[in-house]
Amino acid sequence: MPEVVFSIDQTRSMRDQRVRGHNRWHPDIPVAAMVRSGQEFRVECRDWTDAQIGNNDSANDVRDIDLSLPHMLSGPIGVEGAEPGDLLVVDILDIGPVPQQTGDFPGQGWGYTGIFAKANGGGFLTDYFPDAYKAVWDFHGQSATSRHLPGVRYTGITHPGLFGTAPSQALLDSWNRREQALIDTDRDRVPPLALPPLAENAVVGQASGKDAERIAREGARTVPPREHGGNQDIKNFSRGSRVFYPVYVKDAKLSGGDLHFSQGDGEITFCGAIEMGGFIDLRVELIKGGMEKYGVTTNPIFMPGNVEPRYSEFLSFTGISVDHDTDTNYYMDATIAYRRACLNAIEYLKKFGYSGEQAYLLLGSAPIEGRISGIVDIPNACCTLYLPTAIFDFDVRPNAGGPKSTDRGRAALTS
Amino acid sequence: MPEVVFSIDQTRSMRDQRVRGHNRWHPDIPVAAMVRSGQEFRVECRDWTDAQIGNNDSANDVRDIDLSLPHMLSGPIGVEGAEPGDLLVVDILDIGPVPQQTGDFPGQGWGYTGIFAKANGGGFLTDYFPDAYKAVWDFHGQSATSRHLPGVRYTGITHPGLFGTAPSQALLDSWNRREQALIDTDRDRVPPLALPPLAENAVVGQASGKDAERIAREGARTVPPREHGGNQDIKNFSRGSRVFYPVYVKDAKLSGGDLHFSQGDGEITFCGAIEMGGFIDLRVELIKGGMEKYGVTTNPIFMPGNVEPRYSEFLSFTGISVDHDTDTNYYMDATIAYRRACLNAIEYLKKFGYSGEQAYLLLGSAPIEGRISGIVDIPNACCTLYLPTAIFDFDVRPNAGGPKSTDRGRAALTS
Amino acid sequence: MPEVVFSIDQTRSMRDQRVRGHNRWHPDIPVAAMVRSGQEFRVECRDWTDAQIGNNDSANDVRDIDLSLPHMLSGPIGVEGAEPGDLLVVDILDIGPVPQQTGDFPGQGWGYTGIFAKANGGGFLTDYFPDAYKAVWDFHGQSATSRHLPGVRYTGITHPGLFGTAPSQALLDSWNRREQALIDTDRDRVPPLALPPLAENAVVGQASGKDAERIAREGARTVPPREHGGNQDIKNFSRGSRVFYPVYVKDAKLSGGDLHFSQGDGEITFCGAIEMGGFIDLRVELIKGGMEKYGVTTNPIFMPGNVEPRYSEFLSFTGISVDHDTDTNYYMDATIAYRRACLNAIEYLKKFGYSGEQAYLLLGSAPIEGRISGIVDIPNACCTLYLPTAIFDFDVRPNAGGPKSTDRGRAALTS
Amino acid sequence: MPEVVFSIDQTRSMRDQRVRGHNRWHPDIPVAAMVRSGQEFRVECRDWTDAQIGNNDSANDVRDIDLSLPHMLSGPIGVEGAEPGDLLVVDILDIGPVPQQTGDFPGQGWGYTGIFAKANGGGFLTDYFPDAYKAVWDFHGQSATSRHLPGVRYTGITHPGLFGTAPSQALLDSWNRREQALIDTDRDRVPPLALPPLAENAVVGQASGKDAERIAREGARTVPPREHGGNQDIKNFSRGSRVFYPVYVKDAKLSGGDLHFSQGDGEITFCGAIEMGGFIDLRVELIKGGMEKYGVTTNPIFMPGNVEPRYSEFLSFTGISVDHDTDTNYYMDATIAYRRACLNAIEYLKKFGYSGEQAYLLLGSAPIEGRISGIVDIPNACCTLYLPTAIFDFDVRPNAGGPKSTDRGRAALTS
Repeated sequence: MPEVVFSIDQTRSMRDQRVRGHNRWHPDIPVAAMVRSGQEFRVECRDWTDAQIGNNDSANDVRDIDLSLPHMLSGPIGVEGAEPGDLLVVDILDIGPVPQQTGDFPGQGWGYTGIFAKANGGGFLTDYFPDAYKAVWDFHGQSATSRHLPGVRYTGITHPGLFGTAPSQALLDSWNRREQALIDTDRDRVPPLALPPLAENAVVGQASGKDAERIAREGARTVPPREHGGNQDIKNFSRGSRVFYPVYVKDAKLSGGDLHFSQGDGEITFCGAIEMGGFIDLRVELIKGGMEKYGVTTNPIFMPGNVEPRYSEFLSFTGISVDHDTDTNYYMDATIAYRRACLNAIEYLKKFGYSGEQAYLLLGSAPIEGRISGIVDIPNACCTLYLPTAIFDFDVRPNAGGPKSTDRGRAALTS
Repeated sequence: MPEVVFSIDQTRSMRDQRVRGHNRWHPDIPVAAMVRSGQEFRVECRDWTDAQIGNNDSANDVRDIDLSLPHMLSGPIGVEGAEPGDLLVVDILDIGPVPQQTGDFPGQGWGYTGIFAKANGGGFLTDYFPDAYKAVWDFHGQSATSRHLPGVRYTGITHPGLFGTAPSQALLDSWNRREQALIDTDRDRVPPLALPPLAENAVVGQASGKDAERIAREGARTVPPREHGGNQDIKNFSRGSRVFYPVYVKDAKLSGGDLHFSQGDGEITFCGAIEMGGFIDLRVELIKGGMEKYGVTTNPIFMPGNVEPRYSEFLSFTGISVDHDTDTNYYMDATIAYRRACLNAIEYLKKFGYSGEQAYLLLGSAPIEGRISGIVDIPNACCTLYLPTAIFDFDVRPNAGGPKSTDRGRAALTS
Repeated sequence: MPEVVFSIDQTRSMRDQRVRGHNRWHPDIPVAAMVRSGQEFRVECRDWTDAQIGNNDSANDVRDIDLSLPHMLSGPIGVEGAEPGDLLVVDILDIGPVPQQTGDFPGQGWGYTGIFAKANGGGFLTDYFPDAYKAVWDFHGQSATSRHLPGVRYTGITHPGLFGTAPSQALLDSWNRREQALIDTDRDRVPPLALPPLAENAVVGQASGKDAERIAREGARTVPPREHGGNQDIKNFSRGSRVFYPVYVKDAKLSGGDLHFSQGDGEITFCGAIEMGGFIDLRVELIKGGMEKYGVTTNPIFMPGNVEPRYSEFLSFTGISVDHDTDTNYYMDATIAYRRACLNAIEYLKKFGYSGEQAYLLLGSAPIEGRISGIVDIPNACCTLYLPTAIFDFDVRPNAGGPKSTDRGRAALTS
Repeated sequence: MPEVVFSIDQTRSMRDQRVRGHNRWHPDIPVAAMVRSGQEFRVECRDWTDAQIGNNDSANDVRDIDLSLPHMLSGPIGVEGAEPGDLLVVDILDIGPVPQQTGDFPGQGWGYTGIFAKANGGGFLTDYFPDAYKAVWDFHGQSATSRHLPGVRYTGITHPGLFGTAPSQALLDSWNRREQALIDTDRDRVPPLALPPLAENAVVGQASGKDAERIAREGARTVPPREHGGNQDIKNFSRGSRVFYPVYVKDAKLSGGDLHFSQGDGEITFCGAIEMGGFIDLRVELIKGGMEKYGVTTNPIFMPGNVEPRYSEFLSFTGISVDHDTDTNYYMDATIAYRRACLNAIEYLKKFGYSGEQAYLLLGSAPIEGRISGIVDIPNACCTLYLPTAIFDFDVRPNAGGPKSTDRGRAALTS
């Protein structure tokens, strides 16, 4: 077990840790710990909500979540010698839920997936599923089951939803500017188009005084992925992966968290992954001047590991960029095409007895793959969703006899 | 070798075959051959352009292609007993290039990939690469190499770009209506938003007289994927796949073609696959009333086969829904996010000596995967492009020493 | 399609071809065709028995087979510039059954698997299954089914059972000497310990006169694998594989055949693969002095291809080097351990309604894996047999309810 | 984390634990803990030698090891309701090295692989490598490197080398009888053919008094795999595997240990795996009467998990059942064939600068596959060894230029 450079007492909020993390992005959040190139180290993490969600059968906590708090990130970890223009090489050596039992927090043998209400968070299919729902998952070593989704068991591709380097001030300013411009196109939209900086509930690490106030005021929200990585929610950042992050500030200032036991491509319910607190073991090194050397300007590069679970049979749903309900054609819109593929999968699963919400929760959290299959055949993009058949304990494939529908319980709902 | 129910003389145009196929979708194109449920049969296919592209070092043929001709489809194959509401189960038993040498047509030991000019076809990155380019690929059993892309060799996931059942008249009318509505939003756009019916150069199978005229006038163009399948360009429709097509008309009327030796997810250069003529062996059966039984309304379902080449190491590029050139943020736009991932991959490959056009041709045709990784983290979608490292004969991974650039020739260009 | 350098008329015996192949190994069999380093070419092949087995429901042909005839090999192919001490690099570009329908010979849409009688050939479990049985397999593109083994369908890992370079005279002499020494330890054993040279029915290519007589008299039988490759029966020599053969004579003189549509590790019924005639496309090059460079003395090296079918769930049977029937312990005997694993698998499959012979035929031909798991834990070797569960159309996994036995027909038997 | 039902203080010998395990097999060793069908629980384990081997650069500890002590097993775990004739279903939920740092014992961030001296243990190639050597491996999350084997890094398929149910008295008697009969064929052999019961250093759990003496006197040694499982050393018993053990005594009495971070098929150096202490999380249930239901008499069945690392390129070495040094032919001897494949691989690796001992240590511990490819082609068995090329940080494939030899340090040796 490598040295813990950022530790968490899972019985306390991130705000009450000895060394606090942060929930906004800003270049001036002080380094919480320094590491050397070549060093292996452990970072402990809270779940993204700072444990607002419980192991119970009510989705009220999802409905009422305070979204000014997430994501509670661990860091920043400074890397000795890192300078703007470098590539920071990060190897994910290991990752897992909280190893010791210290209470009943997410990551202590269980995690959760939530459908967020349209009025508080939304999600990819929020127009079809506007209310809050939840599934709680029990961990069995590397696999998970849920009392809210009977008939399903799968091997988790455990990964961090969010890791990134600190932005430079110029990059931060660019983020705030371009996102505000987007917000300004429809200020009253529900859910909002984007989230501007918000001083309320900002946690800014070891910063204090005027600095802390400024950081809270300017700091970018953690929801979207951006040039530095951030909340990319790439399910393939699992054990054995190597990520190359652009470095924008001295010491790189790597932060992250939002650990997932499993997630489907797209994380479609917004909180679609199986969320948990836990630990991640990393190793870092530097490619000096790597951004220029490799033509990297606005994006991390990564190499996925070689231990993703092997599924060899998939049921695949296609979708095109047409809104069939209104018979409207959109031009090469992969977002709409993938939404149709998701809706098509949900309709299919309902024939086996699942509610639409259960199917939606399943597609957010199971190791499904979402692919952009055709993106040039005007006017219709074609996206595909691959559902591994082996995660079901019944035969989910089409056959001449038709599907066997049965009582499959229900997701946790609001009261 | 199963019985050939639709045969092609590769020395002649589709228009001059004994039994012609078609290049428009219409319910009234007469059945060219009938098959029974459970029957295995072979369908021979022209390449999608009807052999307009040659095995040479000039992209003039790509630049000057007549796009009113494609896709030249084989069929319709009628299936005894198929009725609207059924699911037509199609097993892809085998597929390959033209087995005998009868001339120098695409599929006879070679295929091609084209970047189409913005003024005549366009493509996913047409604003960045507006001119016509071409790569010719030589087949070596299951793998391909190109004199226009030295340093690369990969195993093809051979598949048909296009197969589908005939639309009902109502569905056809809906297509024409909604696509015309889209065209009407910007009639003069180059390239166009969509393609309306076009009687010129319509090939309508065995129809004749008034019927042929009507079909040519009303028939939907074959470019986009639609509810019936069509030009889905899903690279995973390979040997061993099973597809479930909705049936909209009596006898189902299955047609297809546009065979690909290989393709990357998205087929980003428009003619991004390695295009070829060849054959496909199919087996069909029916799930009576399957659309209702399985909740299928607007889409095929499929199960990919189990023989795709195994690559285990990937270099992956991420992209978000931001136009970094103009610092503009788009809302959850997976199309833009995937475009950024593609552009990021191209910039990377240029550091090894490839031209941008070569890299673009590579990403269109090689077995890359394009995934929708995050689609809920407002406002930025995150897409990822997975490039297998083993297709290069040099080490394409980042390292401290930096990339080794060398002379990598050039793509076929226009004169 | 590459140039055919060794062609077969499948309606005739190998003895009656325009250019004959051979069924003995000898350095002086004249080259049938020359190829250059870098050349791609096709070799056509008879099935190993020269079509002694028919597509019918009787195993009489298996029982009565003339084993002085196999293996009927195509070649020798000479490689320009090859000299003793080189490594001959052979790429398997493609392989398949006979492409055209010219009669009803193995490879024309079907193949066969045989249990050989103990009195005429034997097999791995011949003490348990002493009589002749047969299963005929129908090809469906890349997959196979058998009316003699209902409930099973699998994707073939098509490969040549036998390819090798010609031995030098010294190596040939060594083979004959050491194998005769083995035979001499038990001359009357049934089946025999090894097969000595046999002039009767020897086919020696283009040799004639005294040379032909000498070759027939001295030529090594083709049954065992030896230093030059030969009848290795490695199921993983499939499309995309690269083999490095030692070169023992000028021009290397590569010969082969014994094409298999599929085979399980061990090919346990002796004729355990699905046997067929067909074609194989190869490309050759040389590593000059490669045997010394790479420490190769007595064995080919190979690299398997990347398109073997992906199965992800296996039922695995273990065996140890104990004869449980006689309660006898053998010392680290992997042969006995694997035999026990096979017998254990057969007992298991019988519980589902298969006869022992059907199960034996299945294990010989299906893509099972046979592994040496532990070979140091004195006194017991431990071998394991991996059976992919997806090849069955029923649930073959153990569960609390017990197996569902049903009528599964029967293998072809003798009359 | 599930409940720990068998705990280990890694700072103490197994003999000094609060609840001791055992190092002999006997039906009368009392149950150490009871579990229920359906229960998930953790078992903590010492390394197999009870920590006789150190993290240093001398192989003296391997040379001088006391082999009367291993394997130190945790258990027996009783399963409520288990009766002779049942199948005990064991799911391996998780497995890993010692999670906390409590000293410098195997499993605390490191493990070891040993070549045992011919005079004290031996191994598969002990006639070629008669002296003791060692490699110490450092764990980096899921991957391992060794200062004694530079240039190599691989992902561990972590697994228990040894688990099994208790034998009945009759089965135990049979083991002792048949193994003694084998020993009696060559009593003075070095290394011995098998190991008889040995009261010295026997650890017999909670047994005491006369019982303890009898168990020590009669108890079977733990080295070989037998009908109940035992030391099978199957590298594929990794996370996600399900094993079906025969039950021979009331409560089943499951015991195990000998955890491996990684192992190659065959575990050829005797202590060929990367050995470690650690933990294993299990879940059990019963198939009542399962032995009869599924035809299981003398062997466990298992289903491997789905998270083994994916390697897609292999260099494969073949071997046949000939001793080329003495030009002696053996009849269908898979043990000799696999030995030749191992020796061939070692000769190859030496060309890159490794010593024979380093290559031997590598093949014992890396995730190589050993297959029985052909086992019917009289007189030669053909075995194959698959070495994943991606575990090397240099290009290990043959090419025209020849291998690049370099200084690769040395294994730990004796003084």
